[in-house]
Amino acid sequence: MSNNKKVGITDTTLRDAHQSLWATRMRTEDMLPIVGKMDQVGYHAMEVWGGATFDVCMRYLDEDPWERLQLLDSYITNTPLQMLLRAQNVVGYKHYPDDVVRKFVHKAAENGIDRFRIFDALNDVRNMKTAIEAVKETGKHIQATVVYTISPVHTIEHYIETAVTLQEMGAHSLCIKDMAGLLKPYRAYELVSALKEKIDIPIELHSHYIGGMAISTYLKGVEAGADVIDTATASLAFGSSQPPVETMNAIWQDTDFHVNLDFDLLFDIDSYFERVRRKRGFSRGVTKITDMQTFAHQVPGGMISNLVSQLEKQEALDQIHDVLKEIPRVRKDLGYPPLVTPTSQIVGTQAVFNVLLGERYKVIPDEVKSYIKGYYGQPPAEINPEIQKKAIGEEEPITCRPADLLESTLDNIKDEVEQYVEKEEDYLSYALFPQVGLKFLKQRKKNRDIFGEEEPEVNEEITNQEIISREA
Amino acid sequence: MSNNKKVGITDTTLRDAHQSLWATRMRTEDMLPIVGKMDQVGYHAMEVWGGATFDVCMRYLDEDPWERLQLLDSYITNTPLQMLLRAQNVVGYKHYPDDVVRKFVHKAAENGIDRFRIFDALNDVRNMKTAIEAVKETGKHIQATVVYTISPVHTIEHYIETAVTLQEMGAHSLCIKDMAGLLKPYRAYELVSALKEKIDIPIELHSHYIGGMAISTYLKGVEAGADVIDTATASLAFGSSQPPVETMNAIWQDTDFHVNLDFDLLFDIDSYFERVRRKRGFSRGVTKITDMQTFAHQVPGGMISNLVSQLEKQEALDQIHDVLKEIPRVRKDLGYPPLVTPTSQIVGTQAVFNVLLGERYKVIPDEVKSYIKGYYGQPPAEINPEIQKKAIGEEEPITCRPADLLESTLDNIKDEVEQYVEKEEDYLSYALFPQVGLKFLKQRKKNRDIFGEEEPEVNEEITNQEIISREA
Ligand SMILES: [Co+2]
Ligand SMILES: [Co+2]
Repeated sequence: MSNNKKVGITDTTLRDAHQSLWATRMRTEDMLPIVGKMDQVGYHAMEVWGGATFDVCMRYLDEDPWERLQLLDSYITNTPLQMLLRAQNVVGYKHYPDDVVRKFVHKAAENGIDRFRIFDALNDVRNMKTAIEAVKETGKHIQATVVYTISPVHTIEHYIETAVTLQEMGAHSLCIKDMAGLLKPYRAYELVSALKEKIDIPIELHSHYIGGMAISTYLKGVEAGADVIDTATASLAFGSSQPPVETMNAIWQDTDFHVNLDFDLLFDIDSYFERVRRKRGFSRGVTKITDMQTFAHQVPGGMISNLVSQLEKQEALDQIHDVLKEIPRVRKDLGYPPLVTPTSQIVGTQAVFNVLLGERYKVIPDEVKSYIKGYYGQPPAEINPEIQKKAIGEEEPITCRPADLLESTLDNIKDEVEQYVEKEEDYLSYALFPQVGLKFLKQRKKNRDIFGEEEPEVNEEITNQEIISREA
Repeated sequence: MSNNKKVGITDTTLRDAHQSLWATRMRTEDMLPIVGKMDQVGYHAMEVWGGATFDVCMRYLDEDPWERLQLLDSYITNTPLQMLLRAQNVVGYKHYPDDVVRKFVHKAAENGIDRFRIFDALNDVRNMKTAIEAVKETGKHIQATVVYTISPVHTIEHYIETAVTLQEMGAHSLCIKDMAGLLKPYRAYELVSALKEKIDIPIELHSHYIGGMAISTYLKGVEAGADVIDTATASLAFGSSQPPVETMNAIWQDTDFHVNLDFDLLFDIDSYFERVRRKRGFSRGVTKITDMQTFAHQVPGGMISNLVSQLEKQEALDQIHDVLKEIPRVRKDLGYPPLVTPTSQIVGTQAVFNVLLGERYKVIPDEVKSYIKGYYGQPPAEINPEIQKKAIGEEEPITCRPADLLESTLDNIKDEVEQYVEKEEDYLSYALFPQVGLKFLKQRKKNRDIFGEEEPEVNEEITNQEIISREA
């Protein structure tokens, strides 16, 4: 056990926590009154942007994500601002061309992002290359991520190899992303210890509470040398969100692990968000009984909720147990992708088809075919050759970096949105989400013309697309 | 870290978990369909009786607690049955004469209790003497308890001294009772390690989840050599209850700490209780924001809820923060009693008086005077002499074991209830709870006369007395 170690705490309340518990529906107006206090806590960083927040701002909140970032940056002056960048997926659900990735990173940095947490669902470092290089150009902090999952190929060696490569590519720190709460305390100890021997950059643990292990996972991970952990304020912690900062602060109080955040400040922040929660009608984070079942079949709780709603629509909820049994088989067939957006949808949809149609791979959806063709990146293990043949016949999967096949777009879209654009960032909003972005930009123009600066009414409807996007 | 250690798991679902989350309102009929499955899990023990369940059975459920025990004993054939015995308080809230304690223990053993967990709020071993001797007479397992709290006198040495005495008195195992979720993981490591050096009997950890540390506390406690931990099924875990068994089982799976309970069995039990919970309209266990504040002022969450409702009645809720600040001062004045039933009420009430009347100790309630006179046992530290003088003048506190001053009662009450009694145990129900017991026995007789075996309507009202009794 290291003695007298300083442990950094990154707050995720304004990004992952409300993405996990409130369907990403926290508004900028709910953030601004309290961010000054949050800025005084002494957090290692505050993750406030990226992930699903960009999309949801425009799609459901009629908010400009860039304006949110500017505002947060103007209020938060002490604490580094962090964003979750889905590597080549940026803040969307598919690969974008390099020019979009690069431009987005530069604009995010200009508008206030200090730390970029970059992950790829398949841990394919080629998908992270452009993002890493772009952040390098801005001079900001590059946090590269390995997605944690359980499979025969996701060994300690796999993680060491990936982490060493990422460090060589220029990462300033490494994040272990445990999006499904599957990282067990003693496994975290083993993993962090092994990584600490092979890489020099700081290690940050990002776990979701879910089945209840995450607090202990942080404890053992920090014993093994992890430098930073991710938490949320208690009102937005637990359940599918991060562990609460208050508990971690209490655990390490008066020990050799120094955190020592001010409890009164933390409780003020807590009470504030508890009031927001009640006002907005959201629930506290609670471990669902299905979350516990994750321990047996390793299907993330968030994925189960999606499967349940998919099956309910087909009036086939009674087949959920067969689907849960089918998922590990499909996952094996597809080379053990981690179950995180978008691979969780790919595996889940195929498993549902296999069970509902009574014959495996009778129907293979387009996104599964794309995955098999290599358009999402290199699968962690070999794909079952029989399934591959069934899906794409004799066609050879690509072996290059998928984004090498994509053409630059930014120069070609100018005309399409020029009349609605107020700033250069608007082109990115449109390039990332053509439909949603255009609708948002048009509506904004309309509102400005009619109401001046007044806020329009907000569409609160939660669609299925959004529920899926909550996961990663 | 010990290698290849077997960790025992005691299930508290049928006693502490529903006492903590459902106001002790689980009915025998809700237990019987599932106890057969629970019996197959391989629990170290199941705590199913004692604490508040005895009182609540008669007071609110119109159930005979002895009948519940007999039924459970007939269904649960593999797993030892455990009860929580409040030492000289038996299953009530005041000291009873030795003859009541002794008779109660014998009858509990006859009806199926295999393990007696015995605790005294002040860790005064004299209050545990009769109970321990009585269990010794029955040949059953004596589990002596130390109540965990934080104060300048509750040092590791205090706990070692108490534990050594309890082992000498004949305890077969030791329980560390962390009723307020205040035992931190590294403190647990230190405490268990120190105890393991000085006592030979197995050590069991009993924590409440509350602020979220308990899972980690078990983890570190077991690393230090703790032998058994207390958990509940996920549907009745978390919040003010115990940690969930599923999470502990997952944490220790594939490690040197052997638990290896069957997940499918655990999930079946989970689903069953989740259905009961919904049917009965109870909430899941959630960490309240006030629970978090416990980390700052060490006032247990359950005690805060009681204070809030006391202050609300006086329309003085705005003074809660002053009361929370007053509690540690009163606790110090009174010699640092642990805040558990009944001492939490004693300290809490005095603190409320001190704040509301604007002058400290202007009014001193009778129970505070009794406490100062020594009628609850030996306070852990010296009482502030000024306060003592104010409360009881020149009167000398007693120095003997409080129960030495109580006269035997069982022989004197026969006439009062003979006509309602069906079995010897009924005399104990009456001796422990004269009002409630008599009302229950009378009603039972009336029901038998009129309806035969049909069940009468149940009084579901939750009174303040009951809310208070939930705590310990
Ligand atoms: Co996350
Ligand atoms: Co308890």
